Amino acid sequence: MPKHIADSTVRRLSLYLRFVEEALGRGLRTISSDTLAALGGTTSAQVRKDLSSFGSFGKRGLGYPIPDLVERLRDILGLEREWRVVIIGAGRIGSALAHYPGFSQHGFRIVGVYDNDAEKIGRSWDGHPIRDVAHLGRDASREKPDIAVLAIPADTAQATADHVVRAGIRAILNFAPTPLRVPDSVTVKTVNMALELEGLSYALAHKR
Amino acid sequence: MPKHIADSTVRRLSLYLRFVEEALGRGLRTISSDTLAALGGTTSAQVRKDLSSFGSFGKRGLGYPIPDLVERLRDILGLEREWRVVIIGAGRIGSALAHYPGFSQHGFRIVGVYDNDAEKIGRSWDGHPIRDVAHLGRDASREKPDIAVLAIPADTAQATADHVVRAGIRAILNFAPTPLRVPDSVTVKTVNMALELEGLSYALAHKR
Repeated sequence: MPKHIADSTVRRLSLYLRFVEEALGRGLRTISSDTLAALGGTTSAQVRKDLSSFGSFGKRGLGYPIPDLVERLRDILGLEREWRVVIIGAGRIGSALAHYPGFSQHGFRIVGVYDNDAEKIGRSWDGHPIRDVAHLGRDASREKPDIAVLAIPADTAQATADHVVRAGIRAILNFAPTPLRVPDSVTVKTVNMALELEGLSYALAHKR
Repeated sequence: MPKHIADSTVRRLSLYLRFVEEALGRGLRTISSDTLAALGGTTSAQVRKDLSSFGSFGKRGLGYPIPDLVERLRDILGLEREWRVVIIGAGRIGSALAHYPGFSQHGFRIVGVYDNDAEKIGRSWDGHPIRDVAHLGRDASREKPDIAVLAIPADTAQATADHVVRAGIRAILNFAPTPLRVPDSVTVKTVNMALELEGLSYALAHKR
């Protein structure tokens, strides 16, 4: 296993996994690097390079055996184990994420849902009781969540991220439209719908 | 106005806009490149470079006048006009997007909601009647939407994108976990929650 893999490689591995899982669902037994390249918008040389860096699988001319490839990709991506997720912000975004089919299927399990709104605390959210975010640290020391999803407005995002880091959680999926400052030991991925929309708006306004 | 702006610059301009709108809401009148740099996780030299490429605003030592900066950034990003949006896939993701506060506030207006599920067609979705996606082309020739949001599963995403392109829509916000092939005249931005989650999973599995 190579020491450092670029983010762009990890993203391609995720895409390959999507395609081979879909192929597995259709009952296929092998898939070629050409097919993976066409689906992923890359070259077959890139596919072979991406996959060979994790040890050899597949025989030249025969393609990759799909069940092996699914298992190896899931293992590389850390999807063979369960990740414990807390959702902070009991709203539509967290709910959309929790209902995304790949969420539970890929081993992401919601262990707690939090909000700071007294009106919401204690109610049920997709079957989970909404907890007071002030109790996150206490709960986390017992439940050891791996990932915090921040589905909250920008103005409270940094303070909440600080709270998450203090609670010992080492990975954050950030839906707030703002960058977060965290220690190097914590990984943040941001899903910023506003940036993407404004990127489209910019392109529409300036394209001839 | 410079001819070609890199995607990374457009993304920083979106972030600056977020910060100056927030400062405007708090009644501030000027903001320095140092402050913008600190908020955006960049350098003040980068901020000055990003903003100066669109003509000079701000005086050395006095900072940028906030109302002017908001107006210029909104203009550059194409947000001073209204964009007509169709949502394809009447589910939780589209709903989360439609309720994002920046959506209507930044001039994105939903003109139609589509699905291919006979059970859903005709029902109301956040006040919009759900239409049959088979009628998208006919409706689009009349309503001229600018942006299509694809909030649908991966396996139907490419066929739907082809349909959107044939309907004359030139911008796509793609929530399906798969890349889309479109002509150069069409801009696609992808919001891929699965990729981001798997990036976190990878980091958790491999970090020491």
